[in-house]
Amino acid sequence: MSRFFDPRYSGLAPYVPGEQPQDMVYIKLNTNESPFPPSPRAVAAAAEAAGRLQLYSDPEALALRREFARIFGLEADRVVFSNGSDEILYWIFLAFCADGAAFPALSYGFYPVYGEFTGTPCTQIPLREDYSVAPEDYYHLGKTVILANPNAPTGLALSAAQIEEILRTNPDNVVAVDEAYVDFGAESCLPLIDRYDNLLVVQTFSKSRSMAGARLGFAAGSRELIEDLNRVKYSTNPYNVNSMTMAAGIAALADEEYTRKNCRIIAENRDYTIAQLRAMGFFVTDSLANFVFARHPAVSGRTLYEKLRERGVLVRHFSREDIGDFNRITVGTREQMDILLEKTREILEETK
Amino acid sequence: MSRFFDPRYSGLAPYVPGEQPQDMVYIKLNTNESPFPPSPRAVAAAAEAAGRLQLYSDPEALALRREFARIFGLEADRVVFSNGSDEILYWIFLAFCADGAAFPALSYGFYPVYGEFTGTPCTQIPLREDYSVAPEDYYHLGKTVILANPNAPTGLALSAAQIEEILRTNPDNVVAVDEAYVDFGAESCLPLIDRYDNLLVVQTFSKSRSMAGARLGFAAGSRELIEDLNRVKYSTNPYNVNSMTMAAGIAALADEEYTRKNCRIIAENRDYTIAQLRAMGFFVTDSLANFVFARHPAVSGRTLYEKLRERGVLVRHFSREDIGDFNRITVGTREQMDILLEKTREILEETK
Repeated sequence: MSRFFDPRYSGLAPYVPGEQPQDMVYIKLNTNESPFPPSPRAVAAAAEAAGRLQLYSDPEALALRREFARIFGLEADRVVFSNGSDEILYWIFLAFCADGAAFPALSYGFYPVYGEFTGTPCTQIPLREDYSVAPEDYYHLGKTVILANPNAPTGLALSAAQIEEILRTNPDNVVAVDEAYVDFGAESCLPLIDRYDNLLVVQTFSKSRSMAGARLGFAAGSRELIEDLNRVKYSTNPYNVNSMTMAAGIAALADEEYTRKNCRIIAENRDYTIAQLRAMGFFVTDSLANFVFARHPAVSGRTLYEKLRERGVLVRHFSREDIGDFNRITVGTREQMDILLEKTREILEETK
Repeated sequence: MSRFFDPRYSGLAPYVPGEQPQDMVYIKLNTNESPFPPSPRAVAAAAEAAGRLQLYSDPEALALRREFARIFGLEADRVVFSNGSDEILYWIFLAFCADGAAFPALSYGFYPVYGEFTGTPCTQIPLREDYSVAPEDYYHLGKTVILANPNAPTGLALSAAQIEEILRTNPDNVVAVDEAYVDFGAESCLPLIDRYDNLLVVQTFSKSRSMAGARLGFAAGSRELIEDLNRVKYSTNPYNVNSMTMAAGIAALADEEYTRKNCRIIAENRDYTIAQLRAMGFFVTDSLANFVFARHPAVSGRTLYEKLRERGVLVRHFSREDIGDFNRITVGTREQMDILLEKTREILEETK
């Protein structure tokens, strides 16, 4: 830390992204990326936009919002796009958390970082013993509620009806539903935004649309909430989405079939992987996301992670103690899953 | 404003970007974009990267920082890249302004917005009557100093020696030099970063490298200052630079000749435009940027702006009263400048 750094950040523990090792080629199942390339239409549109980079991107993202409106059946002024959904989540902590924020004690690891960085008092609510979120813990909180649904790293989801009850019982606070993984099988809360002016639905193009490297996220909600988020955007970084990403986003939305097909395959591979891991004795949560969360009674999470890594398979192991037995494994192609399963079998044999 | 918006932002007046009208094709001289496309190498690299968007971009931007280090003769840990230089400027207000900030009363219109948004007490220091920055006004301030050099919208620059005196007399505060326009003829402070641990040099790929639509900026400074900025980045948006922009940035750096040639042409066209406007009776500042700042005794800034707009030429007119007589005109190709000059002559004839 330099002697110039604002002392209010002295205790800061920033977010640690998943490792991106360069020492060899891994089967990369550690950052929940899609095994499929983006829609060929998105690739072509981005490449074409690269030729006009001398011009600023449209700060209003009008063409993108219009295409979004067409596909999602919403008005274009009920959505705002961002440089990845992380940017939107940060804005939510900046804009709507004057009463403090509440989120599950095990969830996306960035929430407490945003909380600390923005000076937001945060209440972290423990999960049930089965790692599920207990919706009733979020009733009448009087704080901004942030819920990843499906939750990470468990993959467990609440139904829209369960979230509706949280919305209903917190009418004076924003409930932000982070639906980064929703396209792989959970129920979206988007249909509720007409009925709840305190609902913000956050999604990303990183997972189901294979655009993690493009950085594109959005929030949808009431006109007023979107207006507030725009006020934050225009006070920090109005040209937040570059023109290549914007073009790719429009093209990806126009190719929803491609997205749906990939999501279907990933959901199938997930259910296959869960079944196979359970057959090996793993405890695996009922994930509805593009990852599985698993622990084995005979091998520690750290050991499995390390031994898989030695064998060229990268999974995500978290250092926090309460989930030290687990690994979070991204669902890739069937071939990748079979290699993962085979290596895992080997490791279990070895450690018998 | 929604009823959920944090009341501390209730007075917020966000930044207003230059207009991007869609009603007809304009000669666009209003947002300081380059008239030249990016380096063909940058376009090709971005297009190639579009095919691998399913993978996250490198949050450390290692390849980009290494190429930067090679070209600029600095170590790779003395630079941090951002989603446009606006993001870096925001971070500077977040990170280093506990004692307040000071900047010229006429400068980049975003500084006061950052100040207000981050709750930073800001001292806006008037320019001299000739619109230049008086360096001595910034000595011994005991606040963070933010200087656009060349300044916008005047285009006037301080020498590195003049800025060095500001650095020397404010040893306990960061002096951030925003060099968005430095490549068109002013002196960069980059050579000073070894000697002043309170110096941050901010630059952008938007202007001289024709990459406004790609969103790429950077700050260079001491290891400690860069570490602090990284702490902010990893607490807000670690994957802030997308992989297409990263690839384009690397390729653009490798093609510095292309950048230098474009800057030379733009500087020539600027000096030509200044001379022609002066011959028509305009007062024009001695701009070293890729724009000129001009007013005419016989026609108001607003009128000239409107009449040029009717004729298909878009320039930037600012609503603030103290510069209401002026327009800021981006320097484009010689052909564009000749059209601007011709239309301006017509308008002056008309209003005689």
